[in-house]
Amino acid sequence: MSTVTSTTTPDAEAFLRDFRSLSVIGETPGHGVDRQAATAADAQARTWFTSLAAQYGFRTETDQVGNVFALLEWTPGAPYVLVGSHLDSQPTAGKFDGAYGVAAALHAGRRLASTNSGEAPKYNLAIVDWFNEEGCRFAPSMMGSSVYAGKLPANDALAVTDKNGTTVAQALDAIGHLGTGSGPEAAAYAEIHIEQGRSLEASGTTIGLVHSCWAAAKYTATVHGEQAHTGSTVIADRKDALLGASLLVVLLREIADSFPGAVLHTSVGQLSVYPNSPVVVPSRVDLVMDLRSADEQVLADAQKVLRDGIAKIERGANVTIDVEQSHAWGINPYQAAGVELARECAEKLELSHAPVFTLAGHDSINMKDIVPTVMLFVPSADGISHNEREYTTDADVCAGVDLLTEVVARLCRGELDGAK
Amino acid sequence: MSTVTSTTTPDAEAFLRDFRSLSVIGETPGHGVDRQAATAADAQARTWFTSLAAQYGFRTETDQVGNVFALLEWTPGAPYVLVGSHLDSQPTAGKFDGAYGVAAALHAGRRLASTNSGEAPKYNLAIVDWFNEEGCRFAPSMMGSSVYAGKLPANDALAVTDKNGTTVAQALDAIGHLGTGSGPEAAAYAEIHIEQGRSLEASGTTIGLVHSCWAAAKYTATVHGEQAHTGSTVIADRKDALLGASLLVVLLREIADSFPGAVLHTSVGQLSVYPNSPVVVPSRVDLVMDLRSADEQVLADAQKVLRDGIAKIERGANVTIDVEQSHAWGINPYQAAGVELARECAEKLELSHAPVFTLAGHDSINMKDIVPTVMLFVPSADGISHNEREYTTDADVCAGVDLLTEVVARLCRGELDGAK
Repeated sequence: MSTVTSTTTPDAEAFLRDFRSLSVIGETPGHGVDRQAATAADAQARTWFTSLAAQYGFRTETDQVGNVFALLEWTPGAPYVLVGSHLDSQPTAGKFDGAYGVAAALHAGRRLASTNSGEAPKYNLAIVDWFNEEGCRFAPSMMGSSVYAGKLPANDALAVTDKNGTTVAQALDAIGHLGTGSGPEAAAYAEIHIEQGRSLEASGTTIGLVHSCWAAAKYTATVHGEQAHTGSTVIADRKDALLGASLLVVLLREIADSFPGAVLHTSVGQLSVYPNSPVVVPSRVDLVMDLRSADEQVLADAQKVLRDGIAKIERGANVTIDVEQSHAWGINPYQAAGVELARECAEKLELSHAPVFTLAGHDSINMKDIVPTVMLFVPSADGISHNEREYTTDADVCAGVDLLTEVVARLCRGELDGAK
Repeated sequence: MSTVTSTTTPDAEAFLRDFRSLSVIGETPGHGVDRQAATAADAQARTWFTSLAAQYGFRTETDQVGNVFALLEWTPGAPYVLVGSHLDSQPTAGKFDGAYGVAAALHAGRRLASTNSGEAPKYNLAIVDWFNEEGCRFAPSMMGSSVYAGKLPANDALAVTDKNGTTVAQALDAIGHLGTGSGPEAAAYAEIHIEQGRSLEASGTTIGLVHSCWAAAKYTATVHGEQAHTGSTVIADRKDALLGASLLVVLLREIADSFPGAVLHTSVGQLSVYPNSPVVVPSRVDLVMDLRSADEQVLADAQKVLRDGIAKIERGANVTIDVEQSHAWGINPYQAAGVELARECAEKLELSHAPVFTLAGHDSINMKDIVPTVMLFVPSADGISHNEREYTTDADVCAGVDLLTEVVARLCRGELDGAK
C-alpha cells in the first residue's frame, strides 16, 4: 500500500496551523520546548487547549488532579469516548511528544463535532490533556491518568513535592488548574503519539498499531556513605557514596550489554549527590534505575543479576544501598479488537501500517486497564525522543489525524464495546 | 615528652566558653554546623567575631572580598602579623574546621593584647577570618586569601556565581560584608587547624608542625552525551553522559588503588546531571576531579593514566569529555625557620610535637608564598573531617591556643624576618 497524504486540505492546514501555535509555547533556544508540569509554560499550553476547544464547540472542565477535559455532549447522560495525550514536557524536550496527541485529538474532535449532524452517536466525546505524564518535576510519571484510572489516590498525587518542596496541589493552584471531581465517565480511549523508535521509519510505514507495551521495572536507590575530606582522608577509610552510585550506573549498562539482541534497555536518568561539594567525599546519592524489555523473563533475570551486583558493590565500595521498586508494569497487551479496528480504519484510508510494541510508557497504558483502548503511532525521524530534535513530517502527522478521526468516530458508535 | 594541658585555667575557660558560643551558630540537627560562605549563618559567625574582637580591644575592618580583620596597632605604621583561619563551612560540617583556628587566633590576640604592656613589638597584630575557604558555594576554595595574596584578581572573585546565579559581590553585600581596600600589610602569618588525618592521634602527639603540603591537581570535567528516551532508545544509539561520568568516577578510584602505599588520593565530590529526569538519558554531566599526593612524580604519573583513561571512556561510552585544570599546587614547603620556631615554642611549653604534611588545603598555603608562615595542627579524632562528627579534645584545643599565643608573640617581635 502506498499513500501520499495531502497536507493542503483545509483540515490538514487547520491542524498544522494550530500545532504550530502550540509549538512556540515554552520554546527553547534549541527549537524544542520546556513545559514541565504545572509551570507557567504548561499553563499557557492549557490555555491554548481550552481556548481552541471552546472555539470548536467544546465545554472544558478540570478535575481534582489537573486533568483538563474538553467535552461535547451529543447524548445526554451517556459515557464519553476519551481521546488525548499530554501537553507537559521534559525540561528540554521536542515539540511532538504528547503535544501532537492532544492537538490531533482536538482536531479529530473538531472534525467530528462539525460533521455529526445526523443521528447522535452512542457515546459523547471528551478530548483530554492528562496532567504530568512526564514525571520529571513530580514523580511518578503518568500521574493524571493513574489517578483517573484509580491506580493512584488523588490525595497521594496532590501531596507529591518537587525539589523545591512545592506540592502538586500548590503548583496546580498557582496556575489556576486545581479543579474538582474525577472527570467524565469513560467508555473507551484512543491516543496517538510519535513512535520514539525507528521501526516505522525503517520500514517506511506511516501508522503503528500498538499491540503491547514492553514490561518495565523502575527503582529508586539511595547509596549511603560517609562525608570525609577529599584531600586528607585515606582511600581505605572512605565510604564514598558516589563511587557506589557510579558502579551501579556502570553495572546497569553491563547488564543490558550481557543480553544479546538488544532485548533489554537499562538506564539511570536521574542522580543527585549530597553534599555535592568539590572537597567532600559524598555521603549520599539518590538515583533512579529503569529496566525495560519485551520479554518478562529477560526482565526478571536482569533484576536478579542487579540484586547480586548491588550486594557486591556494597562490599567493594564500603557503602550501603537501599533499593525500592517505585513503578512496574508487565507485558500488558492492548485489546486485540482495538488493534483490528484501527487496522481496518488504516486500510480504509489507504495508510500503510504495521503492528508495533511501545517501549515508552503512555497514558493509554493506564486507560487500557479500565476501558477498550486504541493506541496509534506515527514515525519519528531517527527514533529521536526526549530531545529538542524530535521530528515527524507534516504528511505523517496529518495522516495520523485522519486516522484518529476515523477511529474515534467508530469508538463513539460503540464499535469496541465489550472488547477484552 | 608527656604533657597534660590544663583546661581549667582562666585563659582556657575563656577560650572554651567563646568557642562553645561559636559552635551553636548554624548548628545542624546532627550537632555539626552549616555556615556556607556569605549565608546568614556565616554572617552570624562574623558578628560573633567582630563583637568579641571589639570586646578584646581590637578595631575591625572588612576588605574588598569580605576578609574580616581585627586590628591591634601597637606601632603606628608598622606591618601586621596576621593570624587566623576561616569561619565558613561545608554544608554539613564539623565545628572545628576553620572555626577553631579563628577562635584560637582571637584568644592568642586577646592574651597578647592584655600582656603587652612593656616595649611595643616590632609588628602590629591582625586576627583574620578569611572569606570562603571552603569553596562549596562559590569556587574556588581559599578565595579570600587568594585575593589577599595577589593570586586571584578581586573582580574575578566578586563575579563568581553560586548555583542560583548570585554573585559573591551580591552575597557579601546582602550580609553587609562587602568592604573596601585590600586589608593590612602582612609581615608574617600563623594559622592553627585540626589535622584532618590520623597521624597525630595515632602517635599520641599534641602538636603537628606542618612542613609541607601535598601537591594537588583539580579539574572540572564536562561529559557531553545526547538526550534520549530511557525506555525506547536502543543501547547502541545512546550517548549517555552519566555512563561516561560514572566510568570516570570509577577510573579515578582505580588509579588511586593502582599506586601502592596509599600515596595518592583521588576523589569526585561534586557531580551534576542534566536534565536529571528519570526517563531521559542524560545529555550533560559536570563534575570535579581532585588528585593529591606527597610525591609530585606520582601525581604526574596519575594524571597521565587519567588522560589515557578519559580517551578510552570517550570511545567506550560514545561521549565527549572536556577537561580543564581549575586549581593546582605543588609540594611547596613552609619556611624551615618557621617550623623550627614553632618547635622551640612547643618545647618551651612542654607539648609533644612532630613534623607533619598537610593533605588538605589551607589559607596558609597562599600566605606562605608572600610572607614567613607558621602552620600548626592539633589532633582530630579518627581523622574525621568535613563531617559533623569532627572532634578534638578540650585539652588539645587549649594546648593549641597556648602554643599559637607563644608563636604569634615571637612573630610580632620579628623573629621570622627574612625566613626563606
